[in-house]
Amino acid sequence: MAKKFYSGIRVIYADTDAMGIAYHGNYAKWFEIGRTEFLRQIGYPYATLEKEGIWLPVVELVIKYKQPALYDDILSIACWADDLRGASVIMRYEVKRKVSGELLVDGYTKHAITDPDLKPMLLKRTKPEFYNDVAATIEDE
Amino acid sequence: MAKKFYSGIRVIYADTDAMGIAYHGNYAKWFEIGRTEFLRQIGYPYATLEKEGIWLPVVELVIKYKQPALYDDILSIACWADDLRGASVIMRYEVKRKVSGELLVDGYTKHAITDPDLKPMLLKRTKPEFYNDVAATIEDE
Amino acid sequence: MAKKFYSGIRVIYADTDAMGIAYHGNYAKWFEIGRTEFLRQIGYPYATLEKEGIWLPVVELVIKYKQPALYDDILSIACWADDLRGASVIMRYEVKRKVSGELLVDGYTKHAITDPDLKPMLLKRTKPEFYNDVAATIEDE
Amino acid sequence: MAKKFYSGIRVIYADTDAMGIAYHGNYAKWFEIGRTEFLRQIGYPYATLEKEGIWLPVVELVIKYKQPALYDDILSIACWADDLRGASVIMRYEVKRKVSGELLVDGYTKHAITDPDLKPMLLKRTKPEFYNDVAATIEDE
Repeated sequence: MAKKFYSGIRVIYADTDAMGIAYHGNYAKWFEIGRTEFLRQIGYPYATLEKEGIWLPVVELVIKYKQPALYDDILSIACWADDLRGASVIMRYEVKRKVSGELLVDGYTKHAITDPDLKPMLLKRTKPEFYNDVAATIEDE
Repeated sequence: MAKKFYSGIRVIYADTDAMGIAYHGNYAKWFEIGRTEFLRQIGYPYATLEKEGIWLPVVELVIKYKQPALYDDILSIACWADDLRGASVIMRYEVKRKVSGELLVDGYTKHAITDPDLKPMLLKRTKPEFYNDVAATIEDE
Repeated sequence: MAKKFYSGIRVIYADTDAMGIAYHGNYAKWFEIGRTEFLRQIGYPYATLEKEGIWLPVVELVIKYKQPALYDDILSIACWADDLRGASVIMRYEVKRKVSGELLVDGYTKHAITDPDLKPMLLKRTKPEFYNDVAATIEDE
Repeated sequence: MAKKFYSGIRVIYADTDAMGIAYHGNYAKWFEIGRTEFLRQIGYPYATLEKEGIWLPVVELVIKYKQPALYDDILSIACWADDLRGASVIMRYEVKRKVSGELLVDGYTKHAITDPDLKPMLLKRTKPEFYNDVAATIEDE
């Protein structure tokens, strides 16, 4: 079982739509918050990775919607790594309504691991420490 | 082959991010524009559908990123229906850079077909005309 | 001196633009976060006010930009009430970079105080308790 | 009378909020669309200006809200230059509901005119042609 990392946000008016729920497109940015906190918590803030020449562009986004988030809901975002490969990694997410624990959305983003010219980078060779620290969260029990 | 419907937008500063490209989460709203124009062009603006009690909540969003969109790019959005079922429909999308024709993104949204209480609606029975008109775009050749 | 209420956010990629800074339009939603926390902290969450039939539509927004916010910056948002009148109130804001304390932006929103039909409401008469609790934050020393 | 330049957008679900209207913060990006089209129509697309080293960072944003924009409304955005000075310019905006002509919002943005290091630039001296072409829209009759 991979180790999950948690962050949270509160739904504001700007996030809602005329159906009275959080607009479905907002979860892309809430996944970003989850992923950013994952990286920060394992010791590699994304801003630092970028400075070291490691980019993680999103190549695939998948979101499955179960229940709507409502105005003023506090959302709990779980994020964990999965399927770390030579030059790609999958990040998985679950977004729950904090008070009730209901699952609202799950999904994943697939990221290429590249240099700033977007050329694939063999992370295990070029940044073995980061590779191992991400891998350790996946094998965590 | 399903009939494709086209719309377009221009990437503004608000859409870009610090990587200098369009933020990946924006495609959810550009898919919405494509889908809205599809419905309008076949004669069922979404605002009208809602008034008639037909809701199309997004239950799944999938986006595959091929190339980044850049500031001031004009994007061509193709949208078409696929796999119309009893109480669901899949809408597919291709977003291209208009000038070069490069494919930037493709993906789909899966929609439940519901009443305003989010109960599944058997579209073929309750709104056969709309069902048939969507179906006709799929069988189009 | 009015009493200031504080909240905070962290700038994510979705908030930045191709200049490498937070897009100037985002401050409208960050002001909303500040205002929402102001109301919650004085005991009147906006969701509750709405249920009681008190709406606070924005009728004017003014933002003055001093310094840009950058990716991953933590922003401190101060919000306070000012100039509470019969059927309107001004909320003022300062957004600072948390680490350095630099002032990035200041501004205000002016709100009408209305019923759900957007008719002006004489708050002092219809909800004197809320009126007095807001007024108390202004006279605070 | 300054010459007005026109552009338009359609309000999508992503733009609306739980009040059923366009979120007030969206006008910052709609002003951007108006301003971008102004520059393009006078022959200086913003992307080109940037390449030539002319930046126009927003230093002030003022929006006055008269009427709400609704889902699926087509909005007409008028934009014109005003008060062009040594190293700053004001751009004014009116956003109307296209069908009815109702004024929804007016406002302005004040821009510094700078080099890429954000140092003020005396436009009249460094880019007299651009200065004169903007000035000509203000004196237009």
